[in-house]
Amino acid sequence: MDDKVNLEEEISAIEEHWTPGIVGYLNDYKLIAVKVLGEFVWHKHDETDDFFMVLSGRLTIQLRDRDVELGPGELFVVPRGVEHCPKADEEAHVLVIEPRDTLNTGDAGGDLTANPVEI
Amino acid sequence: MDDKVNLEEEISAIEEHWTPGIVGYLNDYKLIAVKVLGEFVWHKHDETDDFFMVLSGRLTIQLRDRDVELGPGELFVVPRGVEHCPKADEEAHVLVIEPRDTLNTGDAGGDLTANPVEI
Repeated sequence: MDDKVNLEEEISAIEEHWTPGIVGYLNDYKLIAVKVLGEFVWHKHDETDDFFMVLSGRLTIQLRDRDVELGPGELFVVPRGVEHCPKADEEAHVLVIEPRDTLNTGDAGGDLTANPVEI
Repeated sequence: MDDKVNLEEEISAIEEHWTPGIVGYLNDYKLIAVKVLGEFVWHKHDETDDFFMVLSGRLTIQLRDRDVELGPGELFVVPRGVEHCPKADEEAHVLVIEPRDTLNTGDAGGDLTANPVEI
């Protein structure tokens, strides 16, 4: 984990959509590579903001009052406490940054809850 | 600061190399867009890791024992306390993430020390 990270190479090794792979750390934050397709689950994180940056494809961050559409090179930080539901109509590759103890499904839990592993 | 960020658009508005522009925040971290050319200054941050991700061009993170060469879509986290000196032989556009109170030149200070402004 002390070398550079090529995000697309890391993501190509991930098999499942929505399965977070930890590619590094920044202090007490985890750097997560994930490939996404379809709709995630509505949730929020009361204790932290949530960073999303699209590497390839398109990602919609659905908020209760609007949609935020992200393409390559675009990022959005979901403020803490704000309900959101990521969605991708076609596969997208995404960098997510959040504190190490953050659960991917936040307050929602459910089948999509994943324990990220280092890749 | 509550909308999405297109990094290349933000960077196109920056005139000076090595002048950090804050494009957003993630909790107590600042998200910085910067365009770089030439050599920065050797420095370290004793209190924090330092996140670099290349958006376009090529960036060399010189360490005392090796160089880390980054191209588009590649990131590297300089561990806290490790001396480093970024260098770009051609212009590169970079996303930097570090705590809000981090000085760009770390312990080195000098002419390149900049107070990042929101752009």
